Amino acid sequence: MKYFCKIRFVGTDFSGYQVQRGGNKRTVQGELNLAAERLFGVSCAITGCSRTDSGVHADGFALTIALPDGSTPIHPSRLPHAMKACLPPDISLYFATAVPDDFHARYDVDRKTYVYRIHTAPVPNPFMRLYSWHVPYRLDLALMQTAAEKFLGTHDFSAFMAAGSKITSPVRTVYESRVEASGEEILFTVTADGFLYNMVRIMAGTLLEVGQGKIPPERIPEILRRGERKNAGRTAPPEGLVLKEVQYKTADFGKDCLQNQGY
Amino acid sequence: MKYFCKIRFVGTDFSGYQVQRGGNKRTVQGELNLAAERLFGVSCAITGCSRTDSGVHADGFALTIALPDGSTPIHPSRLPHAMKACLPPDISLYFATAVPDDFHARYDVDRKTYVYRIHTAPVPNPFMRLYSWHVPYRLDLALMQTAAEKFLGTHDFSAFMAAGSKITSPVRTVYESRVEASGEEILFTVTADGFLYNMVRIMAGTLLEVGQGKIPPERIPEILRRGERKNAGRTAPPEGLVLKEVQYKTADFGKDCLQNQGY
Repeated sequence: MKYFCKIRFVGTDFSGYQVQRGGNKRTVQGELNLAAERLFGVSCAITGCSRTDSGVHADGFALTIALPDGSTPIHPSRLPHAMKACLPPDISLYFATAVPDDFHARYDVDRKTYVYRIHTAPVPNPFMRLYSWHVPYRLDLALMQTAAEKFLGTHDFSAFMAAGSKITSPVRTVYESRVEASGEEILFTVTADGFLYNMVRIMAGTLLEVGQGKIPPERIPEILRRGERKNAGRTAPPEGLVLKEVQYKTADFGKDCLQNQGY
Repeated sequence: MKYFCKIRFVGTDFSGYQVQRGGNKRTVQGELNLAAERLFGVSCAITGCSRTDSGVHADGFALTIALPDGSTPIHPSRLPHAMKACLPPDISLYFATAVPDDFHARYDVDRKTYVYRIHTAPVPNPFMRLYSWHVPYRLDLALMQTAAEKFLGTHDFSAFMAAGSKITSPVRTVYESRVEASGEEILFTVTADGFLYNMVRIMAGTLLEVGQGKIPPERIPEILRRGERKNAGRTAPPEGLVLKEVQYKTADFGKDCLQNQGY
């Protein structure tokens, strides 16, 4: 039995999603392993849709839980309620369905959507401080919107990757890249077939410098072309970032389940 | 010099607003006292618009800071920024203006608005758990709306007051009392000339029981008339409650400053 699940987690108190070598840091995967073992009485193989950095949040993180042969499954519709009692309060599993054994939560990803939240106000808002990047000055929204559009399409995103990252190819296709105002917030939404290490946070940091007038929007294509990290803006802090949604090639698993939570 | 200020605070880690006897509990007023003394180098008299319970939040809490004669004031427009460095991250002071010495932050209140948030979904949302009451079953919104209207007007609210409270009069006038759906949330908004101890939380707990079909809306006038605490519903937990706004008889201090923060 293989369950496909959607979870949300507040990233603040986690050293990212993935269990790390040494293993004494608190991770989302580590908590999921414990919860699944507590529920099923047996160690399960859990595969996440991606890694997330320390402090980054998720609203629609996807994963599979593979139950070993011979163990007693429970009906997928009962899994959210059953896991509630086993998970810590900063993670919730809100959707589950059965998938074929060959479904892979990471390799079968078609596209992922991230949202980066910037809160612009003279003083921070204590209700938002763990969920947005507080910037105490005005930003030029129109410039940021023009710049965000330059990311659309297929490009070598080497300039928007943490220095020293090891990857097979730095080429990614961006399907959606837009900036909008919402109250005192500026939201950057980006959908792509994949993301390099720190890619969204470097995009967000670059858009901030565009909004400050430090980088003109027209320079984005040149920064992409040159492929040097130093030409892009700073890496925005993790607390503003949330993995919003994951779409799969093989099916629309969990697409209809996304709860509108105002996050 | 007397400053009129608006603050917001996340109530989770506070034993309410007011400094308590003994004084070893963390309170909002206690932190404000420390911050003002750090900023002005002298102890200031701070008067809040109301008390709030342990765990209750505030988005538009009003207060005055009276600087002793002879001390060096700073311009009110600079106070938010200056206090930022002195306050802990769960309190922010976002508006300040000068008021006459005879202005009183508590006695001059005309009306206060509270919002109570109920989150209805099968499993809790970790992003909302500190800011709403999670109720894992469906509620009948229309019944709750009908019931909320019964609170409008001037009534003896003894039935909606924590047992054993000492007050001069249990009569209050409710100007606004409505229930609305917002995504997965049900929001109860209530404005009155004043509130008895636990009044909003007992109203919210009663509305929940109306939504569950346990109390018919038509029974609300009878519960009010009888004036017995046992006839009303349970006291809703503090985390769902936020003091949204305070209006004054004497002026519209800070009315225009309320930032739309999506809280």
